[in-house]
Amino acid sequence: MFEFTVEATVGAARAGVLTLPHGVVQTPAFMPVGTQGTVRALSPFDLRATAVQMVLANTYHLHVRPGEEVVQALGGLHRFMAWDGPVLTDSGGFQIFSLEGMRRVDEEGVEFQSHVDGSRRRLTPERAMEIQWALGSDVAMALDHLVPGVADRATLAAALERTSRWLVRCRARHAALAADAPEFQTCWPILQGGTDPQLRADAVTQVLDLGPWSGVAVGGLAVGEARPAMHATLEAVEPRLPRGLPRYLMGVGFPEDLLEAVARGMDLFDCVAPTRNGRNGQAFTPDGPVNIRNAVHRADAEPLDPSCDCETCRTYSRGYLRHLFVAGELLALRLLSLHNVRFLTRLSEDARARILDGTFDRWRPAWTARYTGGSTP
Amino acid sequence: MFEFTVEATVGAARAGVLTLPHGVVQTPAFMPVGTQGTVRALSPFDLRATAVQMVLANTYHLHVRPGEEVVQALGGLHRFMAWDGPVLTDSGGFQIFSLEGMRRVDEEGVEFQSHVDGSRRRLTPERAMEIQWALGSDVAMALDHLVPGVADRATLAAALERTSRWLVRCRARHAALAADAPEFQTCWPILQGGTDPQLRADAVTQVLDLGPWSGVAVGGLAVGEARPAMHATLEAVEPRLPRGLPRYLMGVGFPEDLLEAVARGMDLFDCVAPTRNGRNGQAFTPDGPVNIRNAVHRADAEPLDPSCDCETCRTYSRGYLRHLFVAGELLALRLLSLHNVRFLTRLSEDARARILDGTFDRWRPAWTARYTGGSTP
Repeated sequence: MFEFTVEATVGAARAGVLTLPHGVVQTPAFMPVGTQGTVRALSPFDLRATAVQMVLANTYHLHVRPGEEVVQALGGLHRFMAWDGPVLTDSGGFQIFSLEGMRRVDEEGVEFQSHVDGSRRRLTPERAMEIQWALGSDVAMALDHLVPGVADRATLAAALERTSRWLVRCRARHAALAADAPEFQTCWPILQGGTDPQLRADAVTQVLDLGPWSGVAVGGLAVGEARPAMHATLEAVEPRLPRGLPRYLMGVGFPEDLLEAVARGMDLFDCVAPTRNGRNGQAFTPDGPVNIRNAVHRADAEPLDPSCDCETCRTYSRGYLRHLFVAGELLALRLLSLHNVRFLTRLSEDARARILDGTFDRWRPAWTARYTGGSTP
Repeated sequence: MFEFTVEATVGAARAGVLTLPHGVVQTPAFMPVGTQGTVRALSPFDLRATAVQMVLANTYHLHVRPGEEVVQALGGLHRFMAWDGPVLTDSGGFQIFSLEGMRRVDEEGVEFQSHVDGSRRRLTPERAMEIQWALGSDVAMALDHLVPGVADRATLAAALERTSRWLVRCRARHAALAADAPEFQTCWPILQGGTDPQLRADAVTQVLDLGPWSGVAVGGLAVGEARPAMHATLEAVEPRLPRGLPRYLMGVGFPEDLLEAVARGMDLFDCVAPTRNGRNGQAFTPDGPVNIRNAVHRADAEPLDPSCDCETCRTYSRGYLRHLFVAGELLALRLLSLHNVRFLTRLSEDARARILDGTFDRWRPAWTARYTGGSTP
């Protein structure tokens, strides 16, 4: 359990297999985001139909509503959302540190106000582990201390030190919870350090010293920094990471970003873009994003993406999809979300196939050139 | 084509088979409403999965957006909405006569303002036929002159006379359109007359004199009148209708109303209640409607309706469904719509089975007593 095998590499890019309590994940793999215990507008049958292997759920959201005790009473997160495949939960930290309202951080943890009922709550490294254990995800993320990516070096370094101290506490609490059920859930640490190569190197050292781990996440990227900075950071971190650990790049991505990150040795990804952008009428296609609301699609009988095998592309015309959006119909939101998720799982499958057959380095620039219309991602 | 066979009767209740260009409909049958070319929140695959046989679409809505010429360019309504089963379109009259803004009626037709762009448009009996022909539905409804059910007798009688004159024009235009494609679409008249037995009798006479028809609709009911008045009206109309014509009761219904209408010889039904109420969190169950938002369902692991075979009831707990509603998740809208539509198709199937095996009269009061908790529908 919690094993990861690298099957093939092309440069830093890897194809692997990750074994989790609720199934096997073939990487690279994209995880859609089920914020409140549902990938917005999609059912678990839709997820299976789009070849999703693993789903992310948000600990903060499920903690404040309906509460982890309700999820647990209803059989845990998998039974709750009727998704029997692997689930990763974040620690709740990202949402809390992003909250508009009151929050206060000290060495003990972070105090925050629920966005649902305004109640004052406290999240500590130990509580983050307990909540995720009650939710019953396959992979629980450690609680990290987040600071803005634009923070000065001293702030970033101090946050890193605190994150390491919190990681010790997460590790201890998770080990205690897992003592009698070691195959129920694993815990992964998160690497921070902004785009500072030295801080990132320190982060890797500190985290690995606290191991062993069954996987590791790269946090603090895809939060608004320039793409070259993200790429440079990944290139600084990647060689320091053990080959045998799956690497989860948090918050990525858009199709072009996912492929760049695969080329830099990342294995797992999550992002709200396919569903959020889908709900706004933006569809990913091999020739780049398309806004289906555009009048040019009014009487277009062609599918969104003739090369796609999803229900949306096999069944409906662009003209019909545009009509659904313009008319404000709910079906529109589901159909574009479905297609965009499938676009990213298919892109992951394609990348994997090209790594396995050794053609990844030739295929990637051609894919990107077509997708971006020639501009560099 | 357009044949209807009565297979069995119990009192006035009938089980029949209606043959239409896009398939066979076993009656009694409930048609969900696809106002804008989609049954809200449901896909055509969902409709098949809930054993929907026939769908209603709204001519007014499709005329103003995207326009029947767009639907036609995209292959007609069936191809447009990817529903290959039978479709009935209303005439557009009901929506226009219900419009808040400007409308003006004269002998020629009705002038109205589009709710989408405010443009001034005109619907005549001939145009109603032409639009529905372009849409390509299996059954087109004649344009009738609607007046409020509370109108005085003279107004009702004048509207009835005009409806008959319009029916002559609808019949002529439809016959011309269908001259070269007689199996493409049929046209059904609508019986009006409020709850006045004599006017209803006159309506039947006038309509049948203009026949032959392949079906007939009963309009102007389920618009706010008391239930006994609706029942009395159906009982006054039914014996005057030829046995061999399918009878479509417009706008019904809620489960208890549908069953009462089946008992009074009606064969086809449409209503937005299952989808609209579903989107508001109301679910039909054999023990009556349930509001899934209610706190009592918070940690309830039971399905909505243990006797139901729909995806919602086979897959999710009441606790999860409540969470989806309380959290404002889109999946909630689909799952309750799906269940409510299945509830009505299953009720229709059950009624049909009980008519075929002769037990309808024994089964119906028991079903109703359980559903209404003992009160009379």
